[in-house]
Amino acid sequence: MFRFIENGSVTSTKGFKAAGIFCGIKRKRKDLALIYSSLPCTTAGTFTLNKVKAAPLLLSQSIVLKNKTSKAVIVNSGNANACTGEEGYKDAITMQTWCAEKLNLKPSEVLVSSTGVIGQRMPMDTLKKGIEDIVPQLSECGGIDAAEAIMTTDTKIKSFAVNISLSKGNVTLGGIGKGSGMIAPNMATMLGFLSTDASIEKSLLQKLLSEAVQVSFNKISVDGETSTNDMVILMANGAAEIKIEDDSADCLSFKEALIAICKEMAKSIVSDGEGATKLVTIKIKNAKSSKDANLVGKSIANSALVKTAIHGADANWGRILSAAGQSGADIDPAKVSISFDDLPVLLPEYELRLNEESASKILSQAEFCINVDLGQGSEECTWWTCDLSEEYVKINADYRT
Amino acid sequence: MFRFIENGSVTSTKGFKAAGIFCGIKRKRKDLALIYSSLPCTTAGTFTLNKVKAAPLLLSQSIVLKNKTSKAVIVNSGNANACTGEEGYKDAITMQTWCAEKLNLKPSEVLVSSTGVIGQRMPMDTLKKGIEDIVPQLSECGGIDAAEAIMTTDTKIKSFAVNISLSKGNVTLGGIGKGSGMIAPNMATMLGFLSTDASIEKSLLQKLLSEAVQVSFNKISVDGETSTNDMVILMANGAAEIKIEDDSADCLSFKEALIAICKEMAKSIVSDGEGATKLVTIKIKNAKSSKDANLVGKSIANSALVKTAIHGADANWGRILSAAGQSGADIDPAKVSISFDDLPVLLPEYELRLNEESASKILSQAEFCINVDLGQGSEECTWWTCDLSEEYVKINADYRT
Repeated sequence: MFRFIENGSVTSTKGFKAAGIFCGIKRKRKDLALIYSSLPCTTAGTFTLNKVKAAPLLLSQSIVLKNKTSKAVIVNSGNANACTGEEGYKDAITMQTWCAEKLNLKPSEVLVSSTGVIGQRMPMDTLKKGIEDIVPQLSECGGIDAAEAIMTTDTKIKSFAVNISLSKGNVTLGGIGKGSGMIAPNMATMLGFLSTDASIEKSLLQKLLSEAVQVSFNKISVDGETSTNDMVILMANGAAEIKIEDDSADCLSFKEALIAICKEMAKSIVSDGEGATKLVTIKIKNAKSSKDANLVGKSIANSALVKTAIHGADANWGRILSAAGQSGADIDPAKVSISFDDLPVLLPEYELRLNEESASKILSQAEFCINVDLGQGSEECTWWTCDLSEEYVKINADYRT
Repeated sequence: MFRFIENGSVTSTKGFKAAGIFCGIKRKRKDLALIYSSLPCTTAGTFTLNKVKAAPLLLSQSIVLKNKTSKAVIVNSGNANACTGEEGYKDAITMQTWCAEKLNLKPSEVLVSSTGVIGQRMPMDTLKKGIEDIVPQLSECGGIDAAEAIMTTDTKIKSFAVNISLSKGNVTLGGIGKGSGMIAPNMATMLGFLSTDASIEKSLLQKLLSEAVQVSFNKISVDGETSTNDMVILMANGAAEIKIEDDSADCLSFKEALIAICKEMAKSIVSDGEGATKLVTIKIKNAKSSKDANLVGKSIANSALVKTAIHGADANWGRILSAAGQSGADIDPAKVSISFDDLPVLLPEYELRLNEESASKILSQAEFCINVDLGQGSEECTWWTCDLSEEYVKINADYRT
């Protein structure tokens, strides 16, 4: 059992503090965030599969792999510190070291994360001043500020928390995220920082996070791009003094809640995708294999032609079928049926049931579901995508200027 | 040795006639094309890899596979006859039969091709009248009309021919094509109809066409989509009375010319891509394997972020490197160098040489080259792409209305 907490955040969780400030890396908006737990946290992470990995990501990945616990994450927006070579890696270490000094921690207890423009050196003087300024700002209500400070072209704060009832009491799970452009399948997909006051061993924590990411952040697409800096981090500090053991009923409850919050975060990223005006759920049913279900969902979610048709509220089911056909999955187009929400559009054997007016009404909504029944087996999966608008092009035609 | 013929077309070739008319499938523009050779033609073809294949494509594919020769291709635009089931397949056969009757041919000598909206039945009465009208229009100067009649959202006619000097005389090779949206790698990728008056055996003709398609039509991307109707057909009628044998010097000359005309056709499709304002050549060098070279080229050519940056003339080399990194190829980002035409932008070890002003000048041109040296081996390949503009979204948001 779990319930979402109103205005929840990464600091809804016992023992976590956070802050978010403007330090001058961006022109005006907040650009530096810090999340901190006084208790050591077992830490799990998922990281980009792009061969080009940003310096802070490499540093944080090595810490999550090598160390059992961490206590803080420092995150800047405005500069990705990616494609910056040896010097960039040194900058990430310096950022980590400065932050550790101010918090009286070992550098290896501090994770580092960056997002923004690729290929520019980090303005280290600005950052140093920022780190000095942010540490005294740490607060138990700082989660929303932190969520604001990690945004790039995001227009809305992504911040959630759930309260989970377990056999021995309640624990809390909170998270903040950022997305917008460069959102695509097959890895952590964006920045997400999750905190819990449950006590969970590292290997179990990693297993739970990897499974949750697989059905949430790895099932969304804004533009089919995989960034150099994407990561999702989950820190568990045990402040609630409730331990979650593998294969227990409590573990199942925690997992359900973790998946739910990750899905909400993922959906909030898609619906705030660059230029997006619609959040579309794509449900694939009755595939031969789960791999096929995933391929078809991914292909539809990534299709520029489907996404532009959605933008125009055009019930172009042919593009959906064509995207399924080019997915690489083993499908038989004559067995496919398609519906928009509850409105049948295409039945097997190409039997058309399209009521253009009703269909267009559904596709004009801010949220709706495209159901694709492959009619070949029993595997299924769910993807989320957004429409592709002129605004996406405008935003990305001169992102750096 | 070969040279392009001014205003060349599929009827620049001896023994071929063609016509293109308006018959009423579209609202105003020409929508029916016919190509015809009085001599039987050995025929080769490449066809879409989309699992959803249009009825006329299935019919033509089976003819190319089973029969040695053909004499005509009937092509309509405005209606794809795709996702139309059994009835649609019968319509394609009827279209073939009507055309064969009017030309005094066996149905199996007539190929059928369609392009346009998916999932609507073909207006057969309109088509019947059209076939009656077009046959008397066949002419040795009809190639350009045919090129016009196969266009959908294309803004320019795609028509070329080359004259090839061989040891025993000259042969001609002509072609017309259409593209615009749904242009992507890994198959025939659009409609292309090529004619030659050389005499070439079927198996050799197919080998030559497949090789040429691989380095031309299969190396372009407008939006990463693979259509249900894509095909490229090459017909050889032997009217020049010059036979081309495998592994001969003449064969090499013909192959060079075939690749050249296919590349010109492919490039003309990209530069006339929906909403495109720029034609960009992407040259990948020094990859570990040819597979890696192709993956990197494809990933850059398909990247929405690269294509929007190109649209904005923004020298965002980080997106190019990131696209290479997410391609699945085995690359070491620190070894990569990037240049725009002759202007170095990135050297190995992330050494930045970016002169924003000079770079932006190059990226503002209608045509330029992005060179990506992976620094790891000796394999290479070339891709072509276009920019992604607001206009692409506008065109595709309500294509059917």
